[in-house]
Amino acid sequence: MKVKNIAEFLEEKFIGDGETEILRVASLETANTGEISFIEKSELNEAAQNTHADCLIVPENFSGELPCSFIKVTNPKLSFAKVAEKLHAPNERVGVHKTAVVASTAKIRADVFIGAFVTIGEHSSVAEGSQIYDGVKIGDNVTIGKRSIVRPNCVIYENVSIGSDVVLHAGVVIGADGFGYVRDAEKYVKFPQIGTVVIEDEVEIGANSCIDRGALGETRVGKGTKIDNLVQIAHNVQIGRRVVIASQTGISGSTVIEADCVIGGQVGMGDHARVKSGAIIGSQAGVLPGKIVRAGVWWGTPVQPLDEYKRQNAHVKGLERLKEEVKILKKQIAALMDKT
Amino acid sequence: MKVKNIAEFLEEKFIGDGETEILRVASLETANTGEISFIEKSELNEAAQNTHADCLIVPENFSGELPCSFIKVTNPKLSFAKVAEKLHAPNERVGVHKTAVVASTAKIRADVFIGAFVTIGEHSSVAEGSQIYDGVKIGDNVTIGKRSIVRPNCVIYENVSIGSDVVLHAGVVIGADGFGYVRDAEKYVKFPQIGTVVIEDEVEIGANSCIDRGALGETRVGKGTKIDNLVQIAHNVQIGRRVVIASQTGISGSTVIEADCVIGGQVGMGDHARVKSGAIIGSQAGVLPGKIVRAGVWWGTPVQPLDEYKRQNAHVKGLERLKEEVKILKKQIAALMDKT
Amino acid sequence: MKVKNIAEFLEEKFIGDGETEILRVASLETANTGEISFIEKSELNEAAQNTHADCLIVPENFSGELPCSFIKVTNPKLSFAKVAEKLHAPNERVGVHKTAVVASTAKIRADVFIGAFVTIGEHSSVAEGSQIYDGVKIGDNVTIGKRSIVRPNCVIYENVSIGSDVVLHAGVVIGADGFGYVRDAEKYVKFPQIGTVVIEDEVEIGANSCIDRGALGETRVGKGTKIDNLVQIAHNVQIGRRVVIASQTGISGSTVIEADCVIGGQVGMGDHARVKSGAIIGSQAGVLPGKIVRAGVWWGTPVQPLDEYKRQNAHVKGLERLKEEVKILKKQIAALMDKT
Repeated sequence: MKVKNIAEFLEEKFIGDGETEILRVASLETANTGEISFIEKSELNEAAQNTHADCLIVPENFSGELPCSFIKVTNPKLSFAKVAEKLHAPNERVGVHKTAVVASTAKIRADVFIGAFVTIGEHSSVAEGSQIYDGVKIGDNVTIGKRSIVRPNCVIYENVSIGSDVVLHAGVVIGADGFGYVRDAEKYVKFPQIGTVVIEDEVEIGANSCIDRGALGETRVGKGTKIDNLVQIAHNVQIGRRVVIASQTGISGSTVIEADCVIGGQVGMGDHARVKSGAIIGSQAGVLPGKIVRAGVWWGTPVQPLDEYKRQNAHVKGLERLKEEVKILKKQIAALMDKT
Repeated sequence: MKVKNIAEFLEEKFIGDGETEILRVASLETANTGEISFIEKSELNEAAQNTHADCLIVPENFSGELPCSFIKVTNPKLSFAKVAEKLHAPNERVGVHKTAVVASTAKIRADVFIGAFVTIGEHSSVAEGSQIYDGVKIGDNVTIGKRSIVRPNCVIYENVSIGSDVVLHAGVVIGADGFGYVRDAEKYVKFPQIGTVVIEDEVEIGANSCIDRGALGETRVGKGTKIDNLVQIAHNVQIGRRVVIASQTGISGSTVIEADCVIGGQVGMGDHARVKSGAIIGSQAGVLPGKIVRAGVWWGTPVQPLDEYKRQNAHVKGLERLKEEVKILKKQIAALMDKT
Repeated sequence: MKVKNIAEFLEEKFIGDGETEILRVASLETANTGEISFIEKSELNEAAQNTHADCLIVPENFSGELPCSFIKVTNPKLSFAKVAEKLHAPNERVGVHKTAVVASTAKIRADVFIGAFVTIGEHSSVAEGSQIYDGVKIGDNVTIGKRSIVRPNCVIYENVSIGSDVVLHAGVVIGADGFGYVRDAEKYVKFPQIGTVVIEDEVEIGANSCIDRGALGETRVGKGTKIDNLVQIAHNVQIGRRVVIASQTGISGSTVIEADCVIGGQVGMGDHARVKSGAIIGSQAGVLPGKIVRAGVWWGTPVQPLDEYKRQNAHVKGLERLKEEVKILKKQIAALMDKT
């Protein structure tokens, strides 16, 4: 893309040479010929002034000069991300590798990519433009939408539904049995884990994360939700739209996370909890079973509002002083009692 | 199964039409024609009264009427789970896929299922009725018992023993090297990790969990123990019978968990600890190395009895008030000292 | 190896019969004919006195007698580990399995091992003596150094560099997209994740761990660093040499861990933190974003020096007593106020 095409794509004007060819995005520090980067602050900093980039995306109130072309936008990081999506579109692979084992009843669109050593079960379907990488195992009755990308060695159990524009990173497991048993006198009997999983459109799930199938109903991940690596989503969990869940967090059975929540890393949630829309939960926090977490910022185990957490933490830090004060009071009282 | 057959299987009597055909289990809310569900409480609730299920399993002291057949039992959830096991038996696949690579010295029973792209190493064996799904990699000298199910893309390293009626979910890794090194002047030298892993009968292990091999001896998971997704079991850990371990918990080297313990999610245990039979450890708890945890309910990091934890937590919550009280005392004493 | 050869290899002298053939290492308790073990303490303990081992490695100040040959060394555990490395060298497999799919532009040395169902992408290379086990998926432009071992079902994304003498255990994912998005009005737009990962020589990474690629730059794991199972390393993290990271720890984006640090299990680190060389961080600790952690021993969330943590913990434990003391003071003051 030329600088002028990028400006046009962003619906903004450019300053400088519109004909310069841009091939790649890069960080401000390393950007060079043919590369575009961005700055987030309007002050002209040294790195920007000395950039070797051929184009920079800058805040709209930027007023300095630059050694390269530049484009003013409202949110430089967002515009940079959109340009990157354009310049670095994933490889469009097409074709079914000769080693893939696709059931005769599976419906595979002509323009999909099915890699080596993939297996696709009976009555499963892969819609147009999707890419199923090497070693992925897809069970029976699985549907995969359009333009979705399933990276190597993912496993999708039977009867699972994956939407369009979904990305599953390597090693993701969707639809394994939920963890539910009933204790008998001598052993644990498995509670039926025969429900399903629905992954809605535009969801991205990080490497080696696990989304269990519902026990009787469904486990659902809402449209546009982004899940990091090594995350555990238990049976019957309902996650709304545009939720962000960082690495190694675990959500227990039947818990509901409403739309537009942000959940940090290594958070643990008990079962049947409800996180209301707009809640932000800090890393390593713990949500007790059945707890309702309102909008706002939450921290600690068990979670409390960040302000309360900080105040309480300050009190704990102040304990040494408090003990000293009490010691002094004891002496003063002893002295007073002696006198009277 | 007909209602009368289910009652017979449960060794209980039925009320209503014994000839109704039951095909599936379902939740009370969604159950419909051909489906069976259950209620746990003896009070007649609205959902039960309005059920479209063809049969309900109810507590033995239930005295109401229902719009469908029903069966009275001691523990409805348990009976429901047992009926579900019967109605939803896993597919019995048989046969060795033509792409599987099975060593000539491996012993594979005629009635097993070996999926596509499976590899089975030298001198390994798979006993009758077991199902090894697509993409599983089994090393040399591995034994797998009867009726065990190994889901896609699991990896079982060499010299590991898996019992009968075991279920390993997708991505499980059994027998990777334990994490042990000796620090030399310039680098870490690996302590030998040449032991083995024994998974006893009726164990179920969740997706992407890891059970490391013993350094010199063995790592063992006892009969009927159930392990959730993304759990880490380190070298030489000994887990007893009927232990339940929830997701993302990690057990360090040589720690012993005796029979009938329940361990929550995201618990961390240091090495050489011992959890005595009957202990229940709450989620996100931390057990220090060498700690002995007695029977009872435990919580927090480092773990303490739940009662103590709650009392301590209440004290911490009350710190603000305590500080206020001390402030008042200071003023009162100052006033007293002024007077005298 | 004979006892005399082992002594020679350790550059130490042996006492006893140098001609005895040693085949394996074993624990002191189980060692038998043809096996070598070690003791760490100079006092003669019962297990050593009754050992059936054919050779023991003992501390240099050991002065007793033993029922077998023995070798005195400075650090018995280290010497034992070195002997084990010698006696239990990994199988040297060679050859490319006929089912492997290797791109025509990939450079594979003649003496490497490539297992069944492996795929290797365009322009990738595997240097001499490396072993790529069954089911591993290697993307385009990946380089793998000499004598490295990649265990089954690992996935290495495109443009990643793996050094020499590296071990990746089963299910490891290297180079998946980092977790970075920019929030637009209606959805999350992916921040470009087009950087790379560099794994330096002698690194070992445990089963199912994930190392994400840099967003624009690189994620790096330094020479000789050892990482346990189920660990998460985010985009642009820089880990120095000889760092040890235990299981289930997660390191957020752009955080730096300098050389010779030891990080416990289930530790969480926020982004852009820096752990200075020589720091030791206890299990389950939490490092806040941007925090600088100096050399020394750290504990808790947020991390504090172990001494401070212990002192603070003692204060919290003492809260009940403190409250009692304040209650007494209140009574005493009330009495004093009555009097005056």
